[in-house]
Amino acid sequence: MLQRAQAEMLDWRGKGLSVMEMSHRSDDYVAIAEKAEQDLRDLLSVPSNYKVLFLQGGASQQFAEIPLNLLPENGTADYIETGIWSKKAIEEARRFGHINVAASAKPYDYLSIPGQNDWNLTKNAAYVHYASNETIGGLQFDWVPQTGDVPLVVDMSSDILSRPIDVSQFGLIYAGAQKNIGPSGLVVVIVREDLLGHARSSCPTMLDYKVSADNGSMYNTPATYSWYLSGLVFEWLKEQGGVDAMEQRNRAKKDRLYGFIDNSDFYTNPISVNARSWMNVPFRLADERLDKAFLAGADARGLLNLKGHRSVGGMRASIYNALGLEAVEALVGYMAEFEKEHG
Amino acid sequence: MLQRAQAEMLDWRGKGLSVMEMSHRSDDYVAIAEKAEQDLRDLLSVPSNYKVLFLQGGASQQFAEIPLNLLPENGTADYIETGIWSKKAIEEARRFGHINVAASAKPYDYLSIPGQNDWNLTKNAAYVHYASNETIGGLQFDWVPQTGDVPLVVDMSSDILSRPIDVSQFGLIYAGAQKNIGPSGLVVVIVREDLLGHARSSCPTMLDYKVSADNGSMYNTPATYSWYLSGLVFEWLKEQGGVDAMEQRNRAKKDRLYGFIDNSDFYTNPISVNARSWMNVPFRLADERLDKAFLAGADARGLLNLKGHRSVGGMRASIYNALGLEAVEALVGYMAEFEKEHG
Repeated sequence: MLQRAQAEMLDWRGKGLSVMEMSHRSDDYVAIAEKAEQDLRDLLSVPSNYKVLFLQGGASQQFAEIPLNLLPENGTADYIETGIWSKKAIEEARRFGHINVAASAKPYDYLSIPGQNDWNLTKNAAYVHYASNETIGGLQFDWVPQTGDVPLVVDMSSDILSRPIDVSQFGLIYAGAQKNIGPSGLVVVIVREDLLGHARSSCPTMLDYKVSADNGSMYNTPATYSWYLSGLVFEWLKEQGGVDAMEQRNRAKKDRLYGFIDNSDFYTNPISVNARSWMNVPFRLADERLDKAFLAGADARGLLNLKGHRSVGGMRASIYNALGLEAVEALVGYMAEFEKEHG
Repeated sequence: MLQRAQAEMLDWRGKGLSVMEMSHRSDDYVAIAEKAEQDLRDLLSVPSNYKVLFLQGGASQQFAEIPLNLLPENGTADYIETGIWSKKAIEEARRFGHINVAASAKPYDYLSIPGQNDWNLTKNAAYVHYASNETIGGLQFDWVPQTGDVPLVVDMSSDILSRPIDVSQFGLIYAGAQKNIGPSGLVVVIVREDLLGHARSSCPTMLDYKVSADNGSMYNTPATYSWYLSGLVFEWLKEQGGVDAMEQRNRAKKDRLYGFIDNSDFYTNPISVNARSWMNVPFRLADERLDKAFLAGADARGLLNLKGHRSVGGMRASIYNALGLEAVEALVGYMAEFEKEHG
């Protein structure tokens, strides 16, 4: 993907200019943008009554944008709290109205996700919000909540396109692009059309989904280059066989890594098996005084970014779509070697 | 700049990975981001009591962000209306409080800018807002309003870094990066520290300047690649001799183009001489039925994007920093040729 971007950087397909130099209203750029959207629609089989938006500000801006668009001033929205990202979404939404935390993984020390039978959902909630994958805790839903007529809103920043989903089960899906799609500075929103047009009068125009939808995400200049790069990733995903192929690939990766950890007395991952993330695998060494040596050795082998988030410590392997099985094999090889030496 | 970006795309300075793949919290990326900020500070001699922010959403999002941060619920802000962009800023700000249009170029058909003696400024206004350059009308301030203790807020999206400015005359400067800096999806905000910390309780966290300032514009993942590309542009500008050199270059460009137009009976630009934009030069042909042929000929010569904005018609040459004098010579050469043939 990056090689293609590099090859096209100075001259996009013989047009004599870079994508970065194109006006976002030019025919060439509009074609790039539309193809990216269509490829994403194909990959996820997005139904025709959903709009696909390419916006800015990341998932964190969506944390405000969602209540500003979907939560009436006197309404209630239900949120499921399973980790740091869903907690941030809750804190931001609370600034705009009444939020009911219908379920929380806190009583389970964020090691498992409470089943829907234990949720306290509000009758006639404006929506139900959850994060399908928590990147820091390494907790992921392997099921989709059933909320009937209440729109289901999901933060899929870290697992979109990693396996098939049924878009029609959701009212709104959003995903910051920097994890499983690629470039930062872009957030993809897939929203059912009947949810458009209800923004509060106090909602900034740039944060009103209907304005973005009516203008093809070009109310003002969009993040053109990030949008183009995302399109290259969508093309690559289609060439690889789409989300079915990604599911196979990601399943093999996570099976290999969790399998190795579970068979080891030196490494541990404490998450309930059915809530283990396919994307982010936190693990601990038997003795945390070895963490520094482990990270230094990993760094020397080019295995970067293994340090766990500062809020939880330990290690974390992020094995997003872009990573192949061979990279997981390299990691497992190093972990085995390190265990042999220090275990 | 693009060549350098291309060369570094797969492997940033021997680190074995692309800037796009770097975590925004990694030492390498933080160094890239900090150098970009420092270079911009150097270029504009930004005083130490100003914060420089690298945000998302473009100038259009700033149209809301400014009143949400600087306009108390019961306050008044003064706006100067000189064209389409300042009008958009006014419309958006009106959604958040009382806006006084202290002066307008409308009575002058947007051909000249009313002098400050004719402005009806509000005593104790929260701020005074204007756009230093109107890209569509081709109207630019060649002076800086004097507002005493009232903070001066300026949209410099289309003329930042085109010539020297005295930052200390402003409370807040903002600029969408896609015109004079480079990549879209990034907006630079330069704000005096005493203006931070006054956001309304209803302001989304991502739109609160203080939150961005306190987190070095990394409250969430910023537009990392656009920030990096901006840094390459700042480096290039320093190598060229900074904003003094840009002023010389841009003065030569606009003198050549306006000079040619004024000496021609075939082309016209109606803007008052002291309000003519150095960046965007709208002009008309003697007979608009020739517009199509003119644009086709320009296109064949690789002179792209000369069509005037759909709201005003005619032609418009945008001669931002990146364009050299030779490009203006090529345009003037073509215009002379076309006039000879059709005039």
